[in-house]
Amino acid sequence: MLVIGEKINGTRKLVNKAVLTRDVEHIRKLALSQVEAGADVLDINAGTSPEREPEDIIWLVNVVQEITDKQLCLDSPNPEALLAGLGATKQPPIINSISCEEHRLSGVLPIVAKFGCPVLALALDGGTIQTTCEGRMAIVRRLFEETRKAGVADDMVYVDPLVMSVATDTKACLITLETMRSILREYPPAHLTGGLSNVSFGLPARTLLNRAFLTLAIEAGLDSAIVDPTDRGLMETLYATNAVLGRDRHCAQYNRAFRAGKIGPKLEDRKVDEKKPVAVAAAAAPFPVK
Amino acid sequence: MLVIGEKINGTRKLVNKAVLTRDVEHIRKLALSQVEAGADVLDINAGTSPEREPEDIIWLVNVVQEITDKQLCLDSPNPEALLAGLGATKQPPIINSISCEEHRLSGVLPIVAKFGCPVLALALDGGTIQTTCEGRMAIVRRLFEETRKAGVADDMVYVDPLVMSVATDTKACLITLETMRSILREYPPAHLTGGLSNVSFGLPARTLLNRAFLTLAIEAGLDSAIVDPTDRGLMETLYATNAVLGRDRHCAQYNRAFRAGKIGPKLEDRKVDEKKPVAVAAAAAPFPVK
Repeated sequence: MLVIGEKINGTRKLVNKAVLTRDVEHIRKLALSQVEAGADVLDINAGTSPEREPEDIIWLVNVVQEITDKQLCLDSPNPEALLAGLGATKQPPIINSISCEEHRLSGVLPIVAKFGCPVLALALDGGTIQTTCEGRMAIVRRLFEETRKAGVADDMVYVDPLVMSVATDTKACLITLETMRSILREYPPAHLTGGLSNVSFGLPARTLLNRAFLTLAIEAGLDSAIVDPTDRGLMETLYATNAVLGRDRHCAQYNRAFRAGKIGPKLEDRKVDEKKPVAVAAAAAPFPVK
Repeated sequence: MLVIGEKINGTRKLVNKAVLTRDVEHIRKLALSQVEAGADVLDINAGTSPEREPEDIIWLVNVVQEITDKQLCLDSPNPEALLAGLGATKQPPIINSISCEEHRLSGVLPIVAKFGCPVLALALDGGTIQTTCEGRMAIVRRLFEETRKAGVADDMVYVDPLVMSVATDTKACLITLETMRSILREYPPAHLTGGLSNVSFGLPARTLLNRAFLTLAIEAGLDSAIVDPTDRGLMETLYATNAVLGRDRHCAQYNRAFRAGKIGPKLEDRKVDEKKPVAVAAAAAPFPVK
C-alpha cells in the first residue's frame, strides 16, 4: 500500500502562507511528520496563482528534498508548474493528476508520457460526477484509451474512482467499491488510489467512516491512498487490514509498527510489559489446528 | 446486526464468583452496561459444575430479567441447564450452541427443535479445527442435515464459521470470510455469527485487528456477533461499517448513536458545537451530482 501524504497542500491556509512567506521550517515539519508517520510519497501542491506556481513548486521540492529522499507527487493542473517541478526532483515523481477533462489530457498527459511518470487518473470528465458504476467505468475506459494512445503502460496509472458522501447517497461507497473491482477486472495491471474523506462529508465522527471505508477499499484492491498519515487511526486501520487480509507475512509489518509506537497505545502510555517485542512464534492458536 | 453481549459468562473469574455468592449487583451492572452500550441480546453462561448449573442459570436469568426485557442467549453444553433456563425465560431465548459433536447433537438439538429457538451452530466436529473453507463447509453441511432432520428451519440457525489467529496462519481470516460467503450461497436464509477476538490472538493492540475483521465480516454477511458491546471501538466500527455499506438509511442509526454519545468523542469531551444534532439534509455533496 502506497501511502501518499496529503499535507503539503497550498490550498490550505497555513501551507499557502508558508509558501508565500518562504517559511522553510513549516514545510519541513509537515514533511518530517508525514515521513515519520509512514508516508511513502509526499504530495506537493503549491496552490498559488499560475504565474508564480512554477517558482513556488521548485521551492517546495527543494525544501522537502533537503530532509527526505521519499518520492514526491507533483500536484497541479498547470503544465508549466509540473515541468518546473520535474526539473527539480531528484527521482521521477508521480504526477497528480489527469482526468478526461480536455485541458488535463492535452496539457498533463503528454508530460506524463514524455517523462515516464506514474500518474493519478480521476474518473472525471468535467461534467458532474457519475453516480453509477457504469457511468464511472465509461470515463475510466476513455482514460485508458488516452493513456494507451500516449504510450503510458497500464501499470503506471493509479485510478481514483472517486467516492461521494454516504450522507447524500446511501449507495455512494458501494458504487465506489464496485467501480474498483470493475477497474481491476478490465485493467488488471492498473493501480487504485483515492482520497477517503469524501465518504464521510456532512457526518459526525468522520474518521470512523473513513476507517471502515479504508478497510473495505483495501479488500476491493486499493493499493495506494492520498491521506493524512499523521491520522493515527487511519494508519492503524491500514496496518490491521493488511494483516487480517493475509497481506503481511507473519504480521511482521504490523508488529514492527506496534513496536515503533506507530499503532496501538503511544509508547509513553504503555505499561512496561506491553513494550516488550511480541514473539510471533509464541502466539499459539487458541484451538488445536489440523 | 444482532449484537450478543458476551460479558455474563461464568468462565470468567469475577462472574464465577458473583454466581457462587449470588452477587445480584455485579450481574445487574454487567447486564445494564451491555444494554446501554447497544446489546440486542445478552448471553447467559453460568459456567458452574453440571450439578448446580441448572439452579445457577435460573438465578442468572431471573436477575437479568428483573432489569431488562432484552432477549437472552442461554449458553451451555448441558441439556439440564438449558431446560432449566428455558423454564425461567419470559421470551424464547437463543440457544448457544450446537456443533457436529455427538453430545451436542443428541443433547442440545432436540431442545432447540422442541422449543423453536434460534440456535448458534459452530463449524466444529470434536476433532481439530479445519483450516480450509472446504473442510469447514463439510461440517456446515452435516450441521444443516441434522438441523433440517430435526425440523429446525434454516433461518433459525446462526452459523459460527470460526476464526483462527492471523498470527499463526496468515490466511486465517480469509478462510473465515470465504466460508461465510459459501454458507450464504448454499443456505441463503441462514445467519452468520461468531466471536471476533480469536483473529488477533497472540498479537498486540488486538482491538485494531478485531475491528478490521469486523468490517470485512459484515461485508461478507455477518449479521450477528458475540462481542463485548462496551468495547466502544468495536461498536463504532459496527455503526460506521453499516453506514458505508449502505445498510443504514440516511445514516439515521449512525447519527442517533453519535448524538447519544455511543460513538465518536464521549459527550463530556465534546465542544459545544459538536453536541448539536447533525442535519443530514444540510450535508451537501462535495461535488455536483448528476
